[in-house]
Amino acid sequence: MSDFGLDDNYVGIMKAVILKINPEVDLVDLTHSVEPQNLIQAALHLHSAYKFFPESTIFLCVVDPGVGSNRNAIIVKNAQHIFIGPDNGIFSPTLKETGVEEIYTITNDHYFLSPVSHTFHGRDIFAPVAAHVAKGVALKEFGKKRDDYMSLEIPRAELKDEEKKLYGEIIAIDRFGNLITNVEDDFVVDQSEHIHVHIKDQMIPGLSLSYADRSEGALLALVGSKGYLEISVNHGSAKRDLKAEVGDPVVVEYIM
Amino acid sequence: MSDFGLDDNYVGIMKAVILKINPEVDLVDLTHSVEPQNLIQAALHLHSAYKFFPESTIFLCVVDPGVGSNRNAIIVKNAQHIFIGPDNGIFSPTLKETGVEEIYTITNDHYFLSPVSHTFHGRDIFAPVAAHVAKGVALKEFGKKRDDYMSLEIPRAELKDEEKKLYGEIIAIDRFGNLITNVEDDFVVDQSEHIHVHIKDQMIPGLSLSYADRSEGALLALVGSKGYLEISVNHGSAKRDLKAEVGDPVVVEYIM
Amino acid sequence: MSDFGLDDNYVGIMKAVILKINPEVDLVDLTHSVEPQNLIQAALHLHSAYKFFPESTIFLCVVDPGVGSNRNAIIVKNAQHIFIGPDNGIFSPTLKETGVEEIYTITNDHYFLSPVSHTFHGRDIFAPVAAHVAKGVALKEFGKKRDDYMSLEIPRAELKDEEKKLYGEIIAIDRFGNLITNVEDDFVVDQSEHIHVHIKDQMIPGLSLSYADRSEGALLALVGSKGYLEISVNHGSAKRDLKAEVGDPVVVEYIM
Repeated sequence: MSDFGLDDNYVGIMKAVILKINPEVDLVDLTHSVEPQNLIQAALHLHSAYKFFPESTIFLCVVDPGVGSNRNAIIVKNAQHIFIGPDNGIFSPTLKETGVEEIYTITNDHYFLSPVSHTFHGRDIFAPVAAHVAKGVALKEFGKKRDDYMSLEIPRAELKDEEKKLYGEIIAIDRFGNLITNVEDDFVVDQSEHIHVHIKDQMIPGLSLSYADRSEGALLALVGSKGYLEISVNHGSAKRDLKAEVGDPVVVEYIM
Repeated sequence: MSDFGLDDNYVGIMKAVILKINPEVDLVDLTHSVEPQNLIQAALHLHSAYKFFPESTIFLCVVDPGVGSNRNAIIVKNAQHIFIGPDNGIFSPTLKETGVEEIYTITNDHYFLSPVSHTFHGRDIFAPVAAHVAKGVALKEFGKKRDDYMSLEIPRAELKDEEKKLYGEIIAIDRFGNLITNVEDDFVVDQSEHIHVHIKDQMIPGLSLSYADRSEGALLALVGSKGYLEISVNHGSAKRDLKAEVGDPVVVEYIM
Repeated sequence: MSDFGLDDNYVGIMKAVILKINPEVDLVDLTHSVEPQNLIQAALHLHSAYKFFPESTIFLCVVDPGVGSNRNAIIVKNAQHIFIGPDNGIFSPTLKETGVEEIYTITNDHYFLSPVSHTFHGRDIFAPVAAHVAKGVALKEFGKKRDDYMSLEIPRAELKDEEKKLYGEIIAIDRFGNLITNVEDDFVVDQSEHIHVHIKDQMIPGLSLSYADRSEGALLALVGSKGYLEISVNHGSAKRDLKAEVGDPVVVEYIM
């Protein structure tokens, strides 16, 4: 995963570097369309995807606004997977969920390309380190063990009990115009007929199971495949119909 | 092939699911840029591509506006290939050409991820089923045999003999601004000097063999690589020059 | 590498053709987003990437405005790699740097798909030839040896000694809004404190090592990962802030 896009040759070069060191790896693109330097988007993409990957997958994630600064580069191992990238919080929602076994700071330039550029550590540090990890080099070879990693503040939905309302927001919009909110499924899934969802002056009564539960063109709310409350339009685009944007507020009202 | 785009992590997740079940598969992206829920575009992409793929290729095609409804999920086997996806017509132009050996409805949730979401069967049903098919699981394990599949109405060019004219339309426009019509090569290929192609108040006399047959910037008509009549501009863009869009009419006039 | 984009099925079809002939190859996309028919962009993408690829990599590059004309198709072998594509100059900056061992004109239609279209040699000629080269077919089997290849005029920065100025221009802009110029690192790297960079009525004093050398939002100049002088904004976009475009002039002034 990166924010390099596919219009330039950056991603292709990183794959070349990896295959030159370790021709045996299987490469899978999670996405390279993270908005430039958007750490929250990167963190959410990883968090909603990691559990579907095979055991021993190495997640090489380069969204790195601090490249060339004194931010650390890290390797994190949990029970299932290994994560490699800048220590800026992109791994934190995932690691909070899975726990952590070992963390290392990457400092051993024996495993870097030479010279190391000041602007493209994806090519010169992270890709070669990932390739060597995949080859079986012990993690302690790359640098010193450490105890912590940077945490990222993801905007969370806020429950106000006295109002019987949950205040959330749109955190992502997909290609179909589905509005992904930060309301976790736990807050709505057993209440499907006892909630009203408010967004952009519209009120959506109750939760649908699937798009097809409502007629074509109808606005609906459901628990999406990422585990969050989503606002959608069957055979249409909620983004377009509501002129919605990331950051717009969404309120879940609990009714009796 | 899907309409998921590459900006989200949906395609990466489907590949993860497949490789977790069957690490031996080779994955090739046909395209993930099918316009959201555009079944005709999906059907045409598959139809113009399938014959170039190796024997035993499994085509996993998820353009699925009816996800979560009662539309069926199917596996279709013909003499060369296997097709897996929603039964909504995206396979029909291909299958009409190749014929069909066996069709199965996918119902055996032993091969699904659990729980199955109501909005992302690509991840929870189609990807794991495709991975198991690639592993060699017999097709009858996935569900009951059936006889038919949904057919899709592709707009066809209409020949009016009395007028000596063929009425077609633009069905796709590629990145170079080439206008792909629904006029099949059979209707024009032996008539290259005996046709006029009318589009957007322009008349193109005769068929060219290649872009280079005409001077730079000239409008031309030829049989494109997909087997259809295409309108192009040498070293330019017919889309831009003609302000053309999908659906615009194209008329082939047969002259003596 | 190609200018086919990923919205159509052209790239997927080329991969299918390759894997049908040679299922053993590993495929890496350098980029398919070269601007349609932009030979200079293609040449620069290859030039800044080739040295990171494994030995014996076959570079299949199809940016081919002359398809169907009498332009040649070539295979070029240098000490490390093999290059296959149209002979229109896209390989020339790379080959000038590496030297050449052998060049062949591709003419032997035994290795082509049949019939060969007049508009998609990527599918019908270049992909199958690349697959056979990867299989180990001797290069002389594909056609006659030749001595030369087409050269491409890349706009070069011009040094005017009497003025103590170097006149360059923006040759590419990446997704982060970094402005890549045609000023090679040799002209600036040892002069970091003795230059002023002029662009769009702005003057940037001195060279930075990394984005993080300057405060957030500050305009800066550095040697980028491609080996050229780049203009950037830390945590921002130089493209947006300067309203810069490819072709805009950049002047390096040498001061005492």
